[in-house]
Amino acid sequence: MHFIGKQLFALLLCGTGIATWSQCPENLQAEDWTAPANGERIYLKEEFDAAGTDHSLAMARALIRCREEGTQVLVLPKDTYHFHPDFAAERYCFISNNDSGLKRVAFDLTEMTDFTIDGNGSCLVFHGMILPFLLQEGQGITLRNFSIDWEHPFHFQGDVVAVDPENNSFDLKVFDECIYQLRGGQLFFLEKQPRDPQAWLGMALGMQQDMGWVQNLQWTMWYETESRRPWYGEGLHHLHQYNQKLGRYHRVEELAPNHLRIFDATDNLPEPGMTLVLKGRLSKNRYCPAIFADRCTDTHIENVTVHHAGGMGLIAQRCTNVTLDGFDVTLPPEGRRAITTTADATHFVGCRGKIQFADCTFENMLDDATNVHGMYVKIAQQRGGRSVLVRRMHSQQVGTPFAGVGDRLRFSDHARLAPLFESTVTSVIRLNEEVDLIELAEDLPQDITGSITHGLVADNLSWQPDVEMRRVTVRNNRARTVLFSTAGKILVEDCDFSACTFCSVLLDSNADFWYESGPVRDLTIRRCRFQDFGLGRKGGPVFKIGGKLKLVKGDGHYFHQNILIEDNEFILCNPSIIDGVSVKGLTFRGNTIRKSTAFPFVNAKAPAFRFGKAAEIVIDENLFTDGLKESRQDRP
Amino acid sequence: MHFIGKQLFALLLCGTGIATWSQCPENLQAEDWTAPANGERIYLKEEFDAAGTDHSLAMARALIRCREEGTQVLVLPKDTYHFHPDFAAERYCFISNNDSGLKRVAFDLTEMTDFTIDGNGSCLVFHGMILPFLLQEGQGITLRNFSIDWEHPFHFQGDVVAVDPENNSFDLKVFDECIYQLRGGQLFFLEKQPRDPQAWLGMALGMQQDMGWVQNLQWTMWYETESRRPWYGEGLHHLHQYNQKLGRYHRVEELAPNHLRIFDATDNLPEPGMTLVLKGRLSKNRYCPAIFADRCTDTHIENVTVHHAGGMGLIAQRCTNVTLDGFDVTLPPEGRRAITTTADATHFVGCRGKIQFADCTFENMLDDATNVHGMYVKIAQQRGGRSVLVRRMHSQQVGTPFAGVGDRLRFSDHARLAPLFESTVTSVIRLNEEVDLIELAEDLPQDITGSITHGLVADNLSWQPDVEMRRVTVRNNRARTVLFSTAGKILVEDCDFSACTFCSVLLDSNADFWYESGPVRDLTIRRCRFQDFGLGRKGGPVFKIGGKLKLVKGDGHYFHQNILIEDNEFILCNPSIIDGVSVKGLTFRGNTIRKSTAFPFVNAKAPAFRFGKAAEIVIDENLFTDGLKESRQDRP
Repeated sequence: MHFIGKQLFALLLCGTGIATWSQCPENLQAEDWTAPANGERIYLKEEFDAAGTDHSLAMARALIRCREEGTQVLVLPKDTYHFHPDFAAERYCFISNNDSGLKRVAFDLTEMTDFTIDGNGSCLVFHGMILPFLLQEGQGITLRNFSIDWEHPFHFQGDVVAVDPENNSFDLKVFDECIYQLRGGQLFFLEKQPRDPQAWLGMALGMQQDMGWVQNLQWTMWYETESRRPWYGEGLHHLHQYNQKLGRYHRVEELAPNHLRIFDATDNLPEPGMTLVLKGRLSKNRYCPAIFADRCTDTHIENVTVHHAGGMGLIAQRCTNVTLDGFDVTLPPEGRRAITTTADATHFVGCRGKIQFADCTFENMLDDATNVHGMYVKIAQQRGGRSVLVRRMHSQQVGTPFAGVGDRLRFSDHARLAPLFESTVTSVIRLNEEVDLIELAEDLPQDITGSITHGLVADNLSWQPDVEMRRVTVRNNRARTVLFSTAGKILVEDCDFSACTFCSVLLDSNADFWYESGPVRDLTIRRCRFQDFGLGRKGGPVFKIGGKLKLVKGDGHYFHQNILIEDNEFILCNPSIIDGVSVKGLTFRGNTIRKSTAFPFVNAKAPAFRFGKAAEIVIDENLFTDGLKESRQDRP
Repeated sequence: MHFIGKQLFALLLCGTGIATWSQCPENLQAEDWTAPANGERIYLKEEFDAAGTDHSLAMARALIRCREEGTQVLVLPKDTYHFHPDFAAERYCFISNNDSGLKRVAFDLTEMTDFTIDGNGSCLVFHGMILPFLLQEGQGITLRNFSIDWEHPFHFQGDVVAVDPENNSFDLKVFDECIYQLRGGQLFFLEKQPRDPQAWLGMALGMQQDMGWVQNLQWTMWYETESRRPWYGEGLHHLHQYNQKLGRYHRVEELAPNHLRIFDATDNLPEPGMTLVLKGRLSKNRYCPAIFADRCTDTHIENVTVHHAGGMGLIAQRCTNVTLDGFDVTLPPEGRRAITTTADATHFVGCRGKIQFADCTFENMLDDATNVHGMYVKIAQQRGGRSVLVRRMHSQQVGTPFAGVGDRLRFSDHARLAPLFESTVTSVIRLNEEVDLIELAEDLPQDITGSITHGLVADNLSWQPDVEMRRVTVRNNRARTVLFSTAGKILVEDCDFSACTFCSVLLDSNADFWYESGPVRDLTIRRCRFQDFGLGRKGGPVFKIGGKLKLVKGDGHYFHQNILIEDNEFILCNPSIIDGVSVKGLTFRGNTIRKSTAFPFVNAKAPAFRFGKAAEIVIDENLFTDGLKESRQDRP
């Protein structure tokens, strides 16, 4: 089994179709897969016979075999594969901006090198709480040619079919993929119907196999039922399990199976034509992202579609070079689902090298299309001059790698996020998922010690990736299209962004809630189309720059710098284009701006540009039509 | 630093007293500790200076140093030490019959050998979610001379001070160690007041440092306020967050800080003189047991007192030889706490060798004093003759070691728990926390394959410990005193058991909910005093033997066998002594039985002995007084 050069052969797995093994062709033909055509074929029939309609164990064993035998490409004959958590592998995963925990894993690619999974057009269907792909400390991993979906989605969905303002209620037809339970008249949605409907009142946790995720009526998004675009002003109709104005909990009656009447969940009733989406907040709601890459080098994802995930589509942390080519997060071609991933389509934390997007479509997520950022840790304790205890502050950052030996750290004051000091890491002891004990090459200067009482934060200068994004479509999602907080070179080109509930491009600065660092230093956005933003509450800018910084006049500190926005097309349902603070060196030129007809135009008198503490702002040679004006307002 | 024979020196840690380092004597005298008197002293002053009032990091580093230097005894000068989770070590722990998870650990003794922690009479105070002692794969670990307590207990407690039947409400004075919050008029109790009181309605999980445990009004126990004995009939007054009869949730008004009026939480109001204890069921409620021993050999715990734990006092799993000498679970000497541990005082799962108790007191727990058992796993799938997938069934068994290579397994049918087949394990692959893939030395016989559809379970015959229990006092706890499900030799001698809510001794058989195995083969209970059982619902036997077994006439299967109960004293508030099924070879002789005056006597006509499917029952030479009779009833 030795070839000249690299070993190259295929481990062939045979799927069960939707139902049974017998639907799988016994004799696979060469045209059944795309690559490699000339490899040796290992046919794990015995595994799949035993697997029935659950391929998790077979896949776990196939991957063990790939490791043992140095297989480089695992080809799946085109079919539908099902993955349940029951007999899957398991890893404890710390996943930034998602939920950490001990997870079942379908494709555990930990520590693999130069390895490709080629799905050959297969559909991978996941069931319950399972992490589809774990890429951990891998090198040269490629995923290609498959789609990811779940049998039952992690969200709850229903169409408004009637409204009764007199009783402050509305009627909902529940989407047939969702499972719900009324507990004392309150709505909960869950992975599977409990064996004992009264179990929620019981004494102790029951048997493991009876358990699954449960969520409550909390965390709302509204869509147009027909178009599956965000409902214009959807943010005005959010539901709550407890109605603060009325001082009571919502109440639900079941009129018929999958036909509910919901009372008092909102003070601003929805209307027919609206589709409700709930994510829930009873327990962790980002537990099952689709693909998690952790400390990997040279990761390629090509021609992969994520139809759904309970969390993000792709989350990469401390990775070097990630390439997305035809990575889509899109609604399933059939059915009436309104959302894809319950969080961002993609997300990059503390990466370096280059992040490349080409020809991707991201639609109907419950959060952004991408967010490229680092992490601000708080200095929890100084232990002598060079030794600091640093703490991850957000609950969804726990365990994420912050810094390694040799990394350059930047210390900033918490309020202004102005840099105070830099030093290199000489040792890291991880005490627990929150706190690292870090030794620096130099003493922290005495004069910044005082800042500690007000909050001193640090971020990592050595992991600041470049980003290239070309021909990417983002549409119909909650939140924004793209967020950048990296000092690398960022290029966004020939993209089509439309119909989000917040702004389109957010350059944030955040050491208060999310603790996502840091400043942008070189951003170019050109030849893109921006249409219809701020749909959630009817208004708001296309670009939001800055965030909740404390602005100090004359300190010379501008957080984000060197931003070029040129040759784009803006089609707006309100006049606001940029709202920025603490920004230096922004050029907006060669853009055309016109009114959208998709939604009613609002806030007609708002300025196109609004700045607070800004320098070197150039707005030039743009074409404003439909009565829109190049108006600028500067905050004192 | 080498001595003849064993290295023996002390690592001295200096506590901060209640408040500061300066309260700790700088020059420790020989009389400040008990042992070893002649050892070398290493004084980690710099660690403790930095530690302030949190000793977790200092202890973590001290233990690293003990490992590096081969220290055998770590002596703590007598003081009060505080352990917070913030800078503590961390381990993922699978803890049987408690809650598994990624835990902060104050004393991480993983893989230590011949090592002693001598607290020298110190008080160890824990704060929030932290596991005090982790003994994992250790050999010859001794813990002695300290007490364990928590700053804020994991339970909620309050005294009933008024009752209003007209409004179905009662008023409660909240115990000053407890912290509560009203959320939409419902009671929650929690680790610390949230920074934002509306956070429970918010969008996403907040910052890590703002988080802590939260529990709801669920899982009740009632005590007599003055005596802190269980309230007679306490089980009739249980509270629920949702009142099923009234079809609405309970409601709470805050009359003043720590003074609450609770409506509709029960249909059977309590009365003044009663103290409420809640454990909650919103999240895991056995997360922080005091001492966890996992796969250890020769563990000794001497003169250690657990005043509180969020879970069990001691949980040992797959351990060989555990000795408890003066291990107490008792109320703090001061204050008004009604309960100690929120689960069992001690618990042993899948151990072997000998478990010894001597001179222990266990009081006011929310569960049993001890339970020595194994585990029934379910055969989830047969994969060819010798290969089985076995599944842990209860959510609090996940990850617990079930079997190793060379262990002898017994396969039984689920309903009768009658043995069908035995074989030896030749390999174990742990797929995940629930499922192991086990290879056996022999094929499973064809004729038991049919049993699988009805449920086939297996337990481990190689891990069946002997138990010796001498001079142990158990009193005032919810549930039972002792449970045994081991085939080893069990001796209970000179013990004093009183005032529990259920029976005293339970020999269970359980492959339906708890899945705790297996049959008793040699049990002697002598010279013990049993007083006042079945307090929870006023009635019930002292001994309950059997459980929910399917009884098949004439199959010759008797689950528990060879039980001798002799020379004990019974002081009863109802006539029932033994209620047993599927039992063979039980002798009850030389006992004296009289009426208790502590509680009203009930069920006067109930038989003293009640058996279903029993053989070789000998009841002889007992002395019944106060009009009680040696009556026996046999079920058909």
